[in-house]
Amino acid sequence: MGRTVRLAVVPGDGIGPEVVAEGLKVLRAVTADSDVAFEETLFSLGAARYLETGDVLTDADLAAVKEHDAIVLGAVGGVPGDPRLAGANIERGLLLKLRFELDHYVNLRPTTLYPGVASPLADPGEVDFVVVREGTEGPYVGNGGAIRAGTPHEVANEVSVNTAYGVERVVRYAFAQASARRGRLTLVHKTNVLVFAGSLWKRTVDAVAAEFPGVAVDYLHVDAATIFLVADPGRFDVIVTDNLFGDILTDLAGAISGGIGLAASGNINPEGRFPSMFEPVHGSAPDIAGKGIADPTAAILSIAIMLDHLGLATEAGRIRDAVTVDLAERGDARRSTAEVGDAIAARLDQ
Amino acid sequence: MGRTVRLAVVPGDGIGPEVVAEGLKVLRAVTADSDVAFEETLFSLGAARYLETGDVLTDADLAAVKEHDAIVLGAVGGVPGDPRLAGANIERGLLLKLRFELDHYVNLRPTTLYPGVASPLADPGEVDFVVVREGTEGPYVGNGGAIRAGTPHEVANEVSVNTAYGVERVVRYAFAQASARRGRLTLVHKTNVLVFAGSLWKRTVDAVAAEFPGVAVDYLHVDAATIFLVADPGRFDVIVTDNLFGDILTDLAGAISGGIGLAASGNINPEGRFPSMFEPVHGSAPDIAGKGIADPTAAILSIAIMLDHLGLATEAGRIRDAVTVDLAERGDARRSTAEVGDAIAARLDQ
Ligand SMILES: CC(C)[C@H](C(=O)O)[C@@H](O)C(=O)O
Ligand SMILES: CC(C)[C@H](C(=O)O)[C@@H](O)C(=O)O
Repeated sequence: MGRTVRLAVVPGDGIGPEVVAEGLKVLRAVTADSDVAFEETLFSLGAARYLETGDVLTDADLAAVKEHDAIVLGAVGGVPGDPRLAGANIERGLLLKLRFELDHYVNLRPTTLYPGVASPLADPGEVDFVVVREGTEGPYVGNGGAIRAGTPHEVANEVSVNTAYGVERVVRYAFAQASARRGRLTLVHKTNVLVFAGSLWKRTVDAVAAEFPGVAVDYLHVDAATIFLVADPGRFDVIVTDNLFGDILTDLAGAISGGIGLAASGNINPEGRFPSMFEPVHGSAPDIAGKGIADPTAAILSIAIMLDHLGLATEAGRIRDAVTVDLAERGDARRSTAEVGDAIAARLDQ
Repeated sequence: MGRTVRLAVVPGDGIGPEVVAEGLKVLRAVTADSDVAFEETLFSLGAARYLETGDVLTDADLAAVKEHDAIVLGAVGGVPGDPRLAGANIERGLLLKLRFELDHYVNLRPTTLYPGVASPLADPGEVDFVVVREGTEGPYVGNGGAIRAGTPHEVANEVSVNTAYGVERVVRYAFAQASARRGRLTLVHKTNVLVFAGSLWKRTVDAVAAEFPGVAVDYLHVDAATIFLVADPGRFDVIVTDNLFGDILTDLAGAISGGIGLAASGNINPEGRFPSMFEPVHGSAPDIAGKGIADPTAAILSIAIMLDHLGLATEAGRIRDAVTVDLAERGDARRSTAEVGDAIAARLDQ
């Protein structure tokens, strides 16, 4: 009798469904002969569903999603500027709502420059680090407001909320990652300007560091961190940072390591109180949707992160190996989304 | 009878004095035969002064600085982690205080990839854009606080404050820049997450755009903007953005265009109610201070921005030309800080 994993599938909008299809194809291939079965439930959520029904994410949707062991998400968001979407914020109402409601306090975003992948950097060196981005606090909490909106006297505020509880748990997770990797952790913040939040982050890292004597710790201001990501990405092992800085740094990390088409992520609730969610870092890219040209690699690598999270490290490793070989042999060939998925799935048997 | 410009000189800490000396050397050379005289007043402010006197910036200092037509600043900040500086925040108490008190609402940061300068990007193309960073609002206002600090129940908040007044004036400045350049303006923000501040910025740009029909406007989320800065920097002409995003993007801009040693900036009060301040984007770099190896080019180019601001465009252009030639011929030669300043000053006469 094997194990059954209840998988919520949220393909979303734009290229989301296209890349998720390939991710699931690879998932099915890698588990074909194993004793783990993935039972997929489809959730049609996103801009398209909102336009049809007026709902972004209902309480019933959320309750249903919670009944699963993991979530695979493609991408959400309609065509920018679509007037029919003016009243809704799909990102806040769906993606961020899932991250917050499911307490995904670790947003895990690994960056590897794979052999054979062209980097836009002249001399990237070896790139292999992971960003541990806080996922439930900071400027993302939605604690903003405006007075006198639309007048010359408008004041619009946004509050970044940071708690000892929230910072400590993600910092501890990051140290554990660093311990299991090359033993180097970099805190990124802007402590000289955001003195209260910065001080909390800094003190927390200093305190947790005492529990991990084998991890070397350093600190960079977020502005300086962008310089190092371009000039010396090899210096990084684990970066821990807040929700907004993590958002910015991980797009940049994608850009220096073969593009956002390869950047995978996990929104993780480490204790497993809620299902964790795995998604490519890229968005719904409505401009190329429907053409079958989106690169599904990020979605496929996100499946590998999910398998790791579910304790299926062997299967995760097999996917990464297949992707590594595919990338090395990819060259300039233009393949369709499905062809890339097929090729990676086929390599799993070799 | 010529014009006299009263210049406040704040060399600051670390390499600040070293690079400012070269900036002033070039300033003296370029104005040698002109009818403008610069009357320099030295202000010893920074970490060193704080350690000596306990003062960061007194009311008397501020009043005295205000009696000038312009300010040249090197860099401020002591050795990171110096316990004697633990009680002070030189960045907030001096640099940001000057920007806020002198209403430097435009933080102007041009980025050019000069001929002959190696870019870390494999294929940078032509890079020539300017970031108009808001300088007096946003997350930089110092409107933060903490409760239960030092306990497991600590909550540390930071408030980003954005006003119609503050956003509109910097946006209008940015449009004027775009008009005078290649007619392209990119707003960078994170409107899908920071919905209140983002909405104010977006609506303001849309409104001011109507006054500048010749300027093409687009929008990028800050995370996506980092990708384009690496993958296609040539797409940018003028970027307008808030204080924090501008801080991050301009370090990245420096990194892709020859390094932070070339990145110049002006903190500008366009109406001239207060003196504007010109400084390299880089910091005090205590690790290389005193060795005479800091690159003064950013400080020298900051002098050129100052001359533009003072209506001395010919002199500004002569400095930029001299720098352009120096950079083109620089190669790998290791020159001292003074040698670079000497070389650029000498070229002014050619
Ligand atoms: C779509 C958006 C809300 C999201 C974020 O800002 O977190 C995205 O940029 C990401 O990085 O996953
Ligand atoms: C020193 C620091 C306060 C400053 C800033 O964040 O503005 C610096 O990074 C800059 O970009 O001028």
